[in-house]
Amino acid sequence: MIAIALRAPRLGYRRGEPVLRDVRLDVAEGESVAVLGGNGAGKTALLRTLVGLLPAPGGGVEIAGRRVGSPSDAVAAGAALVLQDPDDQLLGATLLDDVLFGPRNLGLPAPEARRRAEEALAAVQIAHLADRAIEALSFGERKRACIAGMLAMRPRVLLLDEPTAGLDPEGELALCQTLRALSEQQGTTLVTATHAVDLVPLFATRAVLLGDGQVLADGPPREVFARGELLARARVRRPWVAELWTRMRPVPPQSGAGLPLTLEEALACMTTVSC
Amino acid sequence: MIAIALRAPRLGYRRGEPVLRDVRLDVAEGESVAVLGGNGAGKTALLRTLVGLLPAPGGGVEIAGRRVGSPSDAVAAGAALVLQDPDDQLLGATLLDDVLFGPRNLGLPAPEARRRAEEALAAVQIAHLADRAIEALSFGERKRACIAGMLAMRPRVLLLDEPTAGLDPEGELALCQTLRALSEQQGTTLVTATHAVDLVPLFATRAVLLGDGQVLADGPPREVFARGELLARARVRRPWVAELWTRMRPVPPQSGAGLPLTLEEALACMTTVSC
Ligand SMILES: Nc1ncnc2c1ncn2[C@@H]1O[C@H](COP(=O)(O)OP(=O)(O)OP(=O)(O)O)[C@@H](O)[C@H]1O
Ligand SMILES: Nc1ncnc2c1ncn2[C@@H]1O[C@H](COP(=O)(O)OP(=O)(O)OP(=O)(O)O)[C@@H](O)[C@H]1O
Ligand SMILES: [Mg+2]
Ligand SMILES: [Mg+2]
Repeated sequence: MIAIALRAPRLGYRRGEPVLRDVRLDVAEGESVAVLGGNGAGKTALLRTLVGLLPAPGGGVEIAGRRVGSPSDAVAAGAALVLQDPDDQLLGATLLDDVLFGPRNLGLPAPEARRRAEEALAAVQIAHLADRAIEALSFGERKRACIAGMLAMRPRVLLLDEPTAGLDPEGELALCQTLRALSEQQGTTLVTATHAVDLVPLFATRAVLLGDGQVLADGPPREVFARGELLARARVRRPWVAELWTRMRPVPPQSGAGLPLTLEEALACMTTVSC
Repeated sequence: MIAIALRAPRLGYRRGEPVLRDVRLDVAEGESVAVLGGNGAGKTALLRTLVGLLPAPGGGVEIAGRRVGSPSDAVAAGAALVLQDPDDQLLGATLLDDVLFGPRNLGLPAPEARRRAEEALAAVQIAHLADRAIEALSFGERKRACIAGMLAMRPRVLLLDEPTAGLDPEGELALCQTLRALSEQQGTTLVTATHAVDLVPLFATRAVLLGDGQVLADGPPREVFARGELLARARVRRPWVAELWTRMRPVPPQSGAGLPLTLEEALACMTTVSC
């Protein structure tokens, strides 16, 4: 089933030139898409368009078959967006208040809202900070709070804007596992804008590369990370492990077949002749 | 010469428990120190203490031999801090206004202030956005603006709180080169709090690892990244290249001798028998 359908001849902020042209994006239920591209490439604009915060003139957005023209349409369709800047998202006085906001807004009974909030806080390892005032949290703790707030709503379509920026190395890996479990086990559809190319193979089944005001590539991460010239145009690089491999061995085929992207894949490659 | 001397039996935010105990940090002129540690470990608290934004009861801070008891003391001693959250730092209406703020405040003549601001914007690749309103910049563009604002002051001691979070992969590498040139060619003293362990070997000559409310390790990055058990306690990992190497070869000695940290080092290791 198609979870997200976006058609946008032009897409961008209300003031200023369009940021992206001719965007056509269909995402199947349970897919996990990483959106890559340099600073200013339009990743945030794309995600904001998906939840009705920015218009798609001459085109449109559908989520789970429902037309999305406003943020409340997006919520009704089961979508939630973790914003890039925690200061734009956090509202509550305490961490728990803030994370309760979403489930309460969905009209859930208080005990169920609380159960979900506590589960979400545990998923991002900050349950012990539940009663802390938001302004007495570190930056990375606030990023985790933003993620917890949206997890607590259990959206069918979860969009994340640079969720690992500011997380510590352990927190980054834990989030990758959480995202993977959501898509593989719950069928949640994920779209994640990220600069963390080393993490992409750990949670994404598909990569969309933005640059020069358009979609430059769209395919499995292994294929997209094989396209050296496009990555350079988009000011993105390969994962370090893949880069090391590429410099040691002959250039892989366009398909990326045999290009290890993670530590585990590189170690496996060393003991076989298939790479 | 000692550029920074910190003695802090206890260090932390005004409300709440101390975050770190028994911190003793001397940084020589031209050194480049990376401060590592999990979310909430106290990296930001440490940097804020160095510029007089937080107190060091029972201890004190000296920068370039001057006692620092307030932010204005820090400026007078030639120190500047790039804040972690761009919303806490950016003041100007346009990008250029914002970056001019520091050099103007130093009392520089207008043409010199402008020259420095333009040079700083170019160093972080956003000179073309000079007249853009701050609120019409992407998150990564705003992070670059924060860095430019402090570069424009040409501080003798430059402190940076998670400066690469939100930068694109190309911008991260460019910043590493800028930092390296500052310390090696200008003798600028650098202290950078960061989760970007893969970049640390590209700009830092020393790593300080925070965890469990104290300094867990302090030494050359190669030595600190060899201490697997301490890294795990601090919720930090090795650079991916070093991790791959560690899993392929016998554990390196405590000193880390022979442990490659970067792509170039790993490639060099493959053609010699020294690693
Ligand atoms: N509120 C705004 N009004 C007008 N233009 C904007 C606004 N916010 C961002 N822009 C511009 O639109 C373009 C796309 O911005 P966007 O925030 O979507 O980029 P991004 O890919 O998310 O970048 P980053 O990696 O820095 O988060 C950039 O050129 C940016 O300067
Ligand atoms: N304004 C504040 N008042 C009281 N406590 C605070 C405040 N800001 C942060 N803290 C707490 O102090 C501790 C250290 O926070 P700090 O911001 O220094 O961590 P950090 O190492 O910079 O983390 P991050 O990687 O998330 O930036 C954390 O436990 C945090 O929750
Ligand atoms: Mg963005
Ligand atoms: Mg911090």
